Amino acid sequence: MLTLLHRYSRNFLTFSTIQTVNRSYYTTQMGKRVAVVLAGCGVYDGSEIHEASAVLVHLSRGGASVNMFAPNIDQMHVVNHLKGEPSEEKRNVLVESARLARGDIQDLSKLSVKDHDAVIFPGGFGAAKNLCTWAVQGKDCSVNDEVKATLQAFHGEGKPIGLCCISPVLAAKVFPGCEVTVGIEKDDKYPDTTDTAAAINQLGCKHVSKSVSESHVDEKNKLVTTSAFMCKAPIHEIFDGIGAMVQDVLKLA
Amino acid sequence: MLTLLHRYSRNFLTFSTIQTVNRSYYTTQMGKRVAVVLAGCGVYDGSEIHEASAVLVHLSRGGASVNMFAPNIDQMHVVNHLKGEPSEEKRNVLVESARLARGDIQDLSKLSVKDHDAVIFPGGFGAAKNLCTWAVQGKDCSVNDEVKATLQAFHGEGKPIGLCCISPVLAAKVFPGCEVTVGIEKDDKYPDTTDTAAAINQLGCKHVSKSVSESHVDEKNKLVTTSAFMCKAPIHEIFDGIGAMVQDVLKLA
Repeated sequence: MLTLLHRYSRNFLTFSTIQTVNRSYYTTQMGKRVAVVLAGCGVYDGSEIHEASAVLVHLSRGGASVNMFAPNIDQMHVVNHLKGEPSEEKRNVLVESARLARGDIQDLSKLSVKDHDAVIFPGGFGAAKNLCTWAVQGKDCSVNDEVKATLQAFHGEGKPIGLCCISPVLAAKVFPGCEVTVGIEKDDKYPDTTDTAAAINQLGCKHVSKSVSESHVDEKNKLVTTSAFMCKAPIHEIFDGIGAMVQDVLKLA
Repeated sequence: MLTLLHRYSRNFLTFSTIQTVNRSYYTTQMGKRVAVVLAGCGVYDGSEIHEASAVLVHLSRGGASVNMFAPNIDQMHVVNHLKGEPSEEKRNVLVESARLARGDIQDLSKLSVKDHDAVIFPGGFGAAKNLCTWAVQGKDCSVNDEVKATLQAFHGEGKPIGLCCISPVLAAKVFPGCEVTVGIEKDDKYPDTTDTAAAINQLGCKHVSKSVSESHVDEKNKLVTTSAFMCKAPIHEIFDGIGAMVQDVLKLA
């Protein structure tokens, strides 16, 4: 019965081909081409899984074609999500992100801005640990070179950038003076928003309080942000808020 | 700035508490209590991530309260999802499933049927590799003892069981004579459905062809199934099909 295993594997492993075929069936000529940049797979050391999945569902519904990317680097660390503590393992950000992408993902160094109309960064600790060092250095963080170059390239071309949860700090660090939201300040439903917003403001940016169901659009910088899991909300409200962000990104693209 | 890391970690690690609090705010007294059984985290060796996430979003929108479970066993193997081939690592099904559950998950041995109105099994190879051995033995597979006991207990109490993608083979193996769908037979959009349906029929069950947007309800056995990623469909269609399955489970619960 090993043939069965292999047959299944072959099928599932051709997902990228399948998606390409589907795109031609389901995406109109007007469909936007969106890059999604992942940071691993799991809230504590990678991309927040449900945020990333919501981004893909809303992009698909919006008729966009999607290419996924992640940096080919080691994770800052690996967290045992059951115990909630770091383990001794090493894992690679691109390899783990491939779980979210069902194998259909490329090294971030291959991302060509001219082939895309927009880029989206889901949140999760991976954004603050692997894409930059915000989780340990706050506003004094450094941003991964490829991530920084990607943000600057889309920004320079006037193409929209979508970010959610903690990812908006990437924009705050790279684009001083920009406007972003990471939730509502001084609201118990958003326990980390007040301090994060203060750090964003210290970077010379403007934090704008928005509820989990809303996205904030910085028209000048074409940045679209939403709080997602920065809010203690039921998962379907987070899903809908990410939908608002994705729709605004597609409108600007 | 390590305090920042720890503060963030504390916040995110209290997700289970947060969820519990949210439930009291958002779930009516009529909200159904649903157990979700995971099989790892990643399509090739665990639960299909987007199926699991869709299940949680639809359950949340339906006002259900959710508890997640997974067997505390080693995965059959670990697949490098970038290369599409097994690696030498070992990973534990419960620990990896905790990534999907943001840490809020329990050993499957702790699942109490009396505390739940329904149970749902997302798909992915983990269902066919870790919850049973269908991926290598087909209809001659064995089913993990705790998984089998869980299925029999819910079935015995007349409580509904939802399954998607390849997971319906679990029901076909445990409940001879039942009806399930894994997609549409002899349709190129469902490349593995014809052979899987044949094996299901050989087990004395009845395969019912249904499109990715539909769920099939076996009223007698209270089984609700949908094809999900057995179909080469855009991810939002798979999301909606899982929504149909979840809604039918909640109706039966």
